[in-house]
Amino acid sequence: MVLVVRGELRLTPGKVAVQVAHAAVMLSELAAKRPSSGYETWRAEGQKKIALIAANLGEMETLQRAARAKGLATVFVEDAGLTEVPPGTRTVLGIGPGPSEIVDSVTGQLALL
Amino acid sequence: MVLVVRGELRLTPGKVAVQVAHAAVMLSELAAKRPSSGYETWRAEGQKKIALIAANLGEMETLQRAARAKGLATVFVEDAGLTEVPPGTRTVLGIGPGPSEIVDSVTGQLALL
Repeated sequence: MVLVVRGELRLTPGKVAVQVAHAAVMLSELAAKRPSSGYETWRAEGQKKIALIAANLGEMETLQRAARAKGLATVFVEDAGLTEVPPGTRTVLGIGPGPSEIVDSVTGQLALL
Repeated sequence: MVLVVRGELRLTPGKVAVQVAHAAVMLSELAAKRPSSGYETWRAEGQKKIALIAANLGEMETLQRAARAKGLATVFVEDAGLTEVPPGTRTVLGIGPGPSEIVDSVTGQLALL
């Protein structure tokens, strides 16, 4: 599972952590409902999660299309906007879980958060 | 749901985000299995998550005991230790979800991450 943070928003570390956690919970719930998602394998292998950073929303939308084209689940976290950003702002793109080689083929060029 | 980060480890923001996400997924899975956990209410209200910081492991263990005494679910994330900390290091304490007034009575004195 990869969590891609929207760099241009310059969120605080605490805000980033919560947004990443939202994405992880949403993806886990999605995966648990889909028999072909590899959820059990992902859990058995320690629920691997990687946090990466993208420059902006456009880059994240391109990543989402690429992930979907490879059959990976994706979610966008939309912030309730009570603190640092306007309501509905997209903050984190979650991708996966899935086989490392497929996930890496989509997100392998991004920097670690 | 409250995620309490262990300040003394001085983890990088990316590492913190992933550890917080581990705790959130673990607690969500626990809560989904317990009919009395308030999981559905928590979900319906937007899966509220708050990231806080504690000074050290001793403070987190005290918080865990206090949370358990009030009937709240807790989890400790133990890092696999491949990068910043030795294997088995406890990095984040997750508490909840639960009624705000009960969660706040345990963690209300901690600083935001």
